[in-house]
Amino acid sequence: MLRPILLAKVNTDRIEPLAITPIGLVHSPYGQKFAVPRQPGLAPHAEAVIEFFSPYDDEKAFYGLQGFSHIHLIFLFDLAPYDHFKATVRPPRLGGNTRRGVFATRSPFRPSRLGLSVVRLLNIEVKDQKVRLRIGGADLVDGTPVVDIKPYIPFVDAVPEAQGGFAVEPPRLKAVTIPPKIEAVLKDELGDRRLLAIAETLAQDPRPAYKGDGDNKLYFARLYNYDIGFKSGVEEITVEKIVKLGEADDSI
Amino acid sequence: MLRPILLAKVNTDRIEPLAITPIGLVHSPYGQKFAVPRQPGLAPHAEAVIEFFSPYDDEKAFYGLQGFSHIHLIFLFDLAPYDHFKATVRPPRLGGNTRRGVFATRSPFRPSRLGLSVVRLLNIEVKDQKVRLRIGGADLVDGTPVVDIKPYIPFVDAVPEAQGGFAVEPPRLKAVTIPPKIEAVLKDELGDRRLLAIAETLAQDPRPAYKGDGDNKLYFARLYNYDIGFKSGVEEITVEKIVKLGEADDSI
Repeated sequence: MLRPILLAKVNTDRIEPLAITPIGLVHSPYGQKFAVPRQPGLAPHAEAVIEFFSPYDDEKAFYGLQGFSHIHLIFLFDLAPYDHFKATVRPPRLGGNTRRGVFATRSPFRPSRLGLSVVRLLNIEVKDQKVRLRIGGADLVDGTPVVDIKPYIPFVDAVPEAQGGFAVEPPRLKAVTIPPKIEAVLKDELGDRRLLAIAETLAQDPRPAYKGDGDNKLYFARLYNYDIGFKSGVEEITVEKIVKLGEADDSI
Repeated sequence: MLRPILLAKVNTDRIEPLAITPIGLVHSPYGQKFAVPRQPGLAPHAEAVIEFFSPYDDEKAFYGLQGFSHIHLIFLFDLAPYDHFKATVRPPRLGGNTRRGVFATRSPFRPSRLGLSVVRLLNIEVKDQKVRLRIGGADLVDGTPVVDIKPYIPFVDAVPEAQGGFAVEPPRLKAVTIPPKIEAVLKDELGDRRLLAIAETLAQDPRPAYKGDGDNKLYFARLYNYDIGFKSGVEEITVEKIVKLGEADDSI
């Protein structure tokens, strides 16, 4: 089921709004906005599953997609409050205090409220005659509504010579230390791949950028069915404690 | 002004539709769907201008975009009739007779009715305190509503090693012959760049794919303020006649 969607207020006397229907939603390891990777592909072992609503769950609608290694997801930033247009935002990549025009960023606080991510297509699964897509490297909160799926066509979509403005390089990663006892619990309960996904996610330092290099305070990231408590130093992330929440979603 | 938009019928008892407001529209050389390039970047000299509606025309909303060479456009296929979900479509690249799942294609006949193109950002222009973006290689009909602009960030958006399914290579181009008298008129009225854009557009053979290699019938492509009459042979496109329509839009 979809979360209730915060609809944007639209100026209907000037421009007619469009009605767009979500075709499905994402099941991901990220239970909250906090700790969701800031770009797709940064936590490649974090798998997610896209479930489709009827009639979009028809296997025929995906015929031919198996030949593509990557897809574009167009999704809705449904957790980003948005009630009026703000021309500028403060991108985390610039430390969270420098303003840029919203159309010069990938910020969720944008008029369309649409997000765009390139993700790896791992598998097209059919269960009870319903299609689900398994993807890798998703940067999406669990429950995010999906608006469209498009194949990634390298000869048109890949422009490696493009100039990247202020976000020219991948973010710096920190080393992640997980104490042996905690590691053993996570490995036993979630398995090696999900343990790796947790480390990849924490390595990006999920704290708000304006917090600076490292503050050694305890933060919690909700990953799979755990709240992972960690502290961030200048060069290193250290897991301090974990709190189990309930049953794991074994599909992701 | 926007064209009246054909709204998709949505199944509101199951899924709540989203309201999305266009932020602007495209002025392009392509007066009709016929002859619009089937992928962005195929007619690099065909420039287009994106005009923004208030309040999205604020210069501050684009601050920082000047550092990016390319942008993602999310737009609406507003001329594609769409009243119910069809699971499969017939992509032109497969000859127009082979069916593929709609989510395995970039077809306009899709539930979201959203299109996605990477285009070159040529210039950010400010006129009467309103921002306009000049872009190159657009594959959009004149008047297309734009829903979002996002910077193209090469380290996340460019995946040159991606596998491309059935559309792995650029389409084959045909040689274009323009008789000297017609070329002189177009060059004089439109200039060298627009003449080149016309040749690039015709080189892709705009006829419906199911028409086959070449049929030597007369077709008209509406480019700038001309209807360009051409015939398509197996290897070559020949311009036969031109009909002037009215005043040119000198911004594109």
